Amino acid sequence: MGMIGGGRGAFIGGVHRIAAGIDGQIELVAGALHVDPEIAVLSGQDLYLKPERIYRTYKELFEKESKLGPDERVDFVSIVTPNHVHFEPAKLALEHGFHVVCEKPLSFNLEEGKQLQALVNSNDLVFAVTHTYTGYPMIKQAREMLTSGVFGKIRRVVVEYPQGWLSTPLERTGSQQASWRTDPKRSGKAGAVGDIGTHAENLAETITGLKIKELSADVTTFVDGRLLDDDASVLLRFDNGAKGVLMCSQISAGEENALSIRVYGEKGSIEWHQHDPNTMFVKWLDKPMEVYRTGQGYMGAAAQAHTRVPAGHPEGYLEAFANIYRDFAKVVQAKLDGVSPDPLHLDFPTVNDGVRGMEFIDAVIESGEKNGAWVTL
Amino acid sequence: MGMIGGGRGAFIGGVHRIAAGIDGQIELVAGALHVDPEIAVLSGQDLYLKPERIYRTYKELFEKESKLGPDERVDFVSIVTPNHVHFEPAKLALEHGFHVVCEKPLSFNLEEGKQLQALVNSNDLVFAVTHTYTGYPMIKQAREMLTSGVFGKIRRVVVEYPQGWLSTPLERTGSQQASWRTDPKRSGKAGAVGDIGTHAENLAETITGLKIKELSADVTTFVDGRLLDDDASVLLRFDNGAKGVLMCSQISAGEENALSIRVYGEKGSIEWHQHDPNTMFVKWLDKPMEVYRTGQGYMGAAAQAHTRVPAGHPEGYLEAFANIYRDFAKVVQAKLDGVSPDPLHLDFPTVNDGVRGMEFIDAVIESGEKNGAWVTL
Amino acid sequence: MGMIGGGRGAFIGGVHRIAAGIDGQIELVAGALHVDPEIAVLSGQDLYLKPERIYRTYKELFEKESKLGPDERVDFVSIVTPNHVHFEPAKLALEHGFHVVCEKPLSFNLEEGKQLQALVNSNDLVFAVTHTYTGYPMIKQAREMLTSGVFGKIRRVVVEYPQGWLSTPLERTGSQQASWRTDPKRSGKAGAVGDIGTHAENLAETITGLKIKELSADVTTFVDGRLLDDDASVLLRFDNGAKGVLMCSQISAGEENALSIRVYGEKGSIEWHQHDPNTMFVKWLDKPMEVYRTGQGYMGAAAQAHTRVPAGHPEGYLEAFANIYRDFAKVVQAKLDGVSPDPLHLDFPTVNDGVRGMEFIDAVIESGEKNGAWVTL
Amino acid sequence: MGMIGGGRGAFIGGVHRIAAGIDGQIELVAGALHVDPEIAVLSGQDLYLKPERIYRTYKELFEKESKLGPDERVDFVSIVTPNHVHFEPAKLALEHGFHVVCEKPLSFNLEEGKQLQALVNSNDLVFAVTHTYTGYPMIKQAREMLTSGVFGKIRRVVVEYPQGWLSTPLERTGSQQASWRTDPKRSGKAGAVGDIGTHAENLAETITGLKIKELSADVTTFVDGRLLDDDASVLLRFDNGAKGVLMCSQISAGEENALSIRVYGEKGSIEWHQHDPNTMFVKWLDKPMEVYRTGQGYMGAAAQAHTRVPAGHPEGYLEAFANIYRDFAKVVQAKLDGVSPDPLHLDFPTVNDGVRGMEFIDAVIESGEKNGAWVTL
Repeated sequence: MGMIGGGRGAFIGGVHRIAAGIDGQIELVAGALHVDPEIAVLSGQDLYLKPERIYRTYKELFEKESKLGPDERVDFVSIVTPNHVHFEPAKLALEHGFHVVCEKPLSFNLEEGKQLQALVNSNDLVFAVTHTYTGYPMIKQAREMLTSGVFGKIRRVVVEYPQGWLSTPLERTGSQQASWRTDPKRSGKAGAVGDIGTHAENLAETITGLKIKELSADVTTFVDGRLLDDDASVLLRFDNGAKGVLMCSQISAGEENALSIRVYGEKGSIEWHQHDPNTMFVKWLDKPMEVYRTGQGYMGAAAQAHTRVPAGHPEGYLEAFANIYRDFAKVVQAKLDGVSPDPLHLDFPTVNDGVRGMEFIDAVIESGEKNGAWVTL
Repeated sequence: MGMIGGGRGAFIGGVHRIAAGIDGQIELVAGALHVDPEIAVLSGQDLYLKPERIYRTYKELFEKESKLGPDERVDFVSIVTPNHVHFEPAKLALEHGFHVVCEKPLSFNLEEGKQLQALVNSNDLVFAVTHTYTGYPMIKQAREMLTSGVFGKIRRVVVEYPQGWLSTPLERTGSQQASWRTDPKRSGKAGAVGDIGTHAENLAETITGLKIKELSADVTTFVDGRLLDDDASVLLRFDNGAKGVLMCSQISAGEENALSIRVYGEKGSIEWHQHDPNTMFVKWLDKPMEVYRTGQGYMGAAAQAHTRVPAGHPEGYLEAFANIYRDFAKVVQAKLDGVSPDPLHLDFPTVNDGVRGMEFIDAVIESGEKNGAWVTL
Repeated sequence: MGMIGGGRGAFIGGVHRIAAGIDGQIELVAGALHVDPEIAVLSGQDLYLKPERIYRTYKELFEKESKLGPDERVDFVSIVTPNHVHFEPAKLALEHGFHVVCEKPLSFNLEEGKQLQALVNSNDLVFAVTHTYTGYPMIKQAREMLTSGVFGKIRRVVVEYPQGWLSTPLERTGSQQASWRTDPKRSGKAGAVGDIGTHAENLAETITGLKIKELSADVTTFVDGRLLDDDASVLLRFDNGAKGVLMCSQISAGEENALSIRVYGEKGSIEWHQHDPNTMFVKWLDKPMEVYRTGQGYMGAAAQAHTRVPAGHPEGYLEAFANIYRDFAKVVQAKLDGVSPDPLHLDFPTVNDGVRGMEFIDAVIESGEKNGAWVTL
Repeated sequence: MGMIGGGRGAFIGGVHRIAAGIDGQIELVAGALHVDPEIAVLSGQDLYLKPERIYRTYKELFEKESKLGPDERVDFVSIVTPNHVHFEPAKLALEHGFHVVCEKPLSFNLEEGKQLQALVNSNDLVFAVTHTYTGYPMIKQAREMLTSGVFGKIRRVVVEYPQGWLSTPLERTGSQQASWRTDPKRSGKAGAVGDIGTHAENLAETITGLKIKELSADVTTFVDGRLLDDDASVLLRFDNGAKGVLMCSQISAGEENALSIRVYGEKGSIEWHQHDPNTMFVKWLDKPMEVYRTGQGYMGAAAQAHTRVPAGHPEGYLEAFANIYRDFAKVVQAKLDGVSPDPLHLDFPTVNDGVRGMEFIDAVIESGEKNGAWVTL
């Protein structure tokens, strides 16, 4: 594995490294870890990379790694840069035949995303987008139950992603995390909608197997002087006739990272909260609510396959993230081995999910600009 | 106290009688308890009313009671009939000089509501509408904190009222409660929006002190053959610039009566759930979440005045309901005594709240019919 | 209904009045409401009692009421005085043929309790002891499930009653509630053990249908200068071989009234918390935990019979208290009518439960004095 | 790092490998992974160890590794075998100059534990015992607050460790995990008391900074035919006068791994549950309960140093485990570098904690055999 970005001062790069390393099957061996070549080198030294595989730019990385032998070169790269630096390294990676793990949202705009999608398809490469939250075992369980029909037809979806950390103009205090997320030149046309709204969208569509058909959004920037949205409420209509609400907000003061989802069918419903990810409430019309718990014997195959320790030993965000890496790596390995991957491993967000996220951003922003007009995805 | 409706087969009438009686200050002495005069009489006997004060119709009640001496006649009547039988008895009550407690929504349509409002004002009578949920002590506390500015300017409101009991066509199984609520001739133009949406609206405006300025709604009937809405999602814009979402649904399978509200200001937020009404979560940008609890010494004056037992002895729905009756009765008593009421007792929903609810219904239904167009209240 | 104690400055008397009045079937018509005759009279006036039935002493009450006709005299009295004034009025009541509701613990010492028990039995009178917490509908449900064998043989019971309100020497600040509870002359030989430990004991034995066979206690007074215990931890052994722990503490700083119980059988278990009394967790060896909720259709007959409003409309402490009064009154009424009471109403703590509580107090205090020696009940 | 045990069919070995690997600083390079030499070899191949460092016995491992150069040999070994195979490999490791991570309980009996303690001290080696649960960041926070005096003197401790997985005779169904834990020849004199009671003891003493002075235990074997205890309730007395209760049970049907602790001081208290390890309830006499959350800015230095991701991204059991490994490795590294370790890293359970656990086991079993007599630790 090689890494683009994630050097000194970065946050999500370290998370990727832990997630990739948890199962002891993936090793970071190369990197172009910072936009500043000097810092890129220092960052590589921090991580004990071999000097010859510390690259000053991602271009250099792709050029040199692609010339190494198949047993030596990195099998894939992880792209953990801000949004405006996803496309070019991803494109280069694909063109040089490397598989890719890419941070979300997939790209700076939809057009870039579609180009990447085309490249992935034409080159027969593996491409994961780190919509981490669908990596939780309980989300696999929810999907299995919701798509099995046990609740009847799905009627209503409420998905929320409130955070409070951008309640103040943090981007004007030197916060690197706040700075690029609120900068249209680095983040794209959306703020909260892109940063966390896409997670909510991905969760809702993944868990239900439904597609959002059209949406109506009220998009707001509450903090004076901020250049991108920090709050949106979105009415959803799904392709099966279900209705729903999606909320994403970074000015919900006092909230941490409170992604949650509720899905209602004709006969029952599920409720899940990311803060307590090993628990799912399963509600019924005519019998007591059940509380499903990760690691229990009654969990389905997909959930079991993504669980590492027994029930009552809480697994968290890093393990969910690691699930994406493990599945991705297994599929890459199968490809290298020329065999079909175990279907249980074909369970991570792909470039198609990434493109879907870009379409979602476009639709929400367009609807917001048109005062909530319904926009078709 | 006299009662209109609430006889055999009714539900909410019994709740009103408990709520009125809890503090031992209000006695039911007269009633026209059923639309069928025979059942009205039997129902009065069930409740041990004196034969001469068991009336066969509400018209008879008003005629005869109004001729009794001031110490003998009922001081007020409670109207606990279906929506289409609110207006006429309320009008008669006011015209005969009786104070009124009326079930929500106030009336069958907005026009009726406005007539009642005019009558209340011109006759200087006391009129309560039983939006029960604002009777909880914790709601008083939330209102006190939110309107004090301790959280800064309010930015975001999420109020939800999911129920699941109408997930199936219950109205076709003989359920009296389901039957009239889904019948446009008895319920009015709205189903869930009127029955529970108005509670959510009343809670949101009461707790924040803000007014909804405009709204955009997606209104749905999910159960085949049902004549009124059973689900609505509404985008809200408040008069101070705050945004919000209101959801009311009676097809949220597996939910009981899960009214909840979250209000976010610049510096913090509150979260309250009706299922655990003695608890409120108070969240802050920079310090630990606090958990407020009914009956504790740190609670404000309004909450304390509406609490009967010490912290840790849970009070519930009936006590919240009783708070409305107690406040109403105290204000009626003050009026009878010719003195000013204690401001602590001027804390119940009035005919103005009732009219507001009717305006809300009109706006939501209109927006729904116009595919989510923004409608001004 | 007549009342002994509960006048000005009292707390629990008012609770009894609400509880007795909620269902509109019981009326307070006479009282000897304070040990000071002058205050007794003023207290009676506060409650609008007729002057001739405001008594200066309980002796006077019994003498005069017993001379009234059967339709006029009170059917029963409620004794809501401190512990040292339970026995004498209860004895007089029984000797004069009045049924009795008595606060817990039953008496000042076990000997008194046994005398009352003998009087109740020989006079064929109805006697309730207000162990309020077994009045909750969910406790009826727990008892039904635990005694049905659905969980197999019961193996383990953990019952706790932590409070924090006596963490400081509140009795030296003028608090009437703290003062008598920590005074051996008024409370008896036990502090926390009598005041709340007996509730925990009653709950454990009621819910399981088991009897504590022997116990070993560590009894402590943490607050300097306090004359009675304020904390106890007790190991329990039940008659069927089950083991358990009972904890009662009034120095558990920060706890409100956190009575809870867990009972484990061979196949599953239940968990209930008084702070959220309408919820019970039902856990199983091999399937998801279920969450039972008051008012739902799947609840058993005993729970349903003690529920007033639909699921999701929380009932609380006052309704649990009212359930004791309602059952008691129904049984008294059946006795007056010369008929057999409905078995569903024979569901309140009796003088036998009261005597059991006194035995428990004796055993815990004795074990505590003997450094935890096992003491047989 | 080398590993003793943890090969095919094992559970906890894999957990150790993940925990050691999460931060990318520790690499498994050698192992004697099974008591059966053939399986030991296969297990080493499973993990891609170099053939020359796959050992058939731990004796061979120590002999050969100790002959390697200081840059090549393992710096430490992890012992993840059943209890009866802790002492000998640990002793050999220490005698050969290897630092040690050892599973709990430390040894088969107290005498062995004391020998190891003496060896560690005389050889100046680093020895960690994996009482995982004190590795959670929130436990660091609790310890910091409790020992700072912010709650005043500690009065009461309730620590519980209920599990349900041994409610049935699982050891007779071929379960390897159940089999050795219930076998006196492999587990030692205690079952649940050793397996999970020692975790509870370690948590209570670590978090409070107090020592258990004496205890009184009721120790039970509920499952017929089982050879060791599966349930114990223990009264505790601490060296500062505090009292407490410790419960450990593996027949608490329906419980997962529900370790929890509550500690009460004069002015407030804390409550923590392992199932939701990033949350701690902080309760006060006179102000609202606060909810502390891992990753928030108000957390103390020790908690911050053991947190990997921002608030709202739940960390779990594996990260707690990894904290022990990281601290241990940092201290080993400092020792190798001849420098003083950062005090923040001296924060893992040592051989002294291990010996304490063995003393606890002895005391509980002795008290149980003496029908609850108080036994001094």
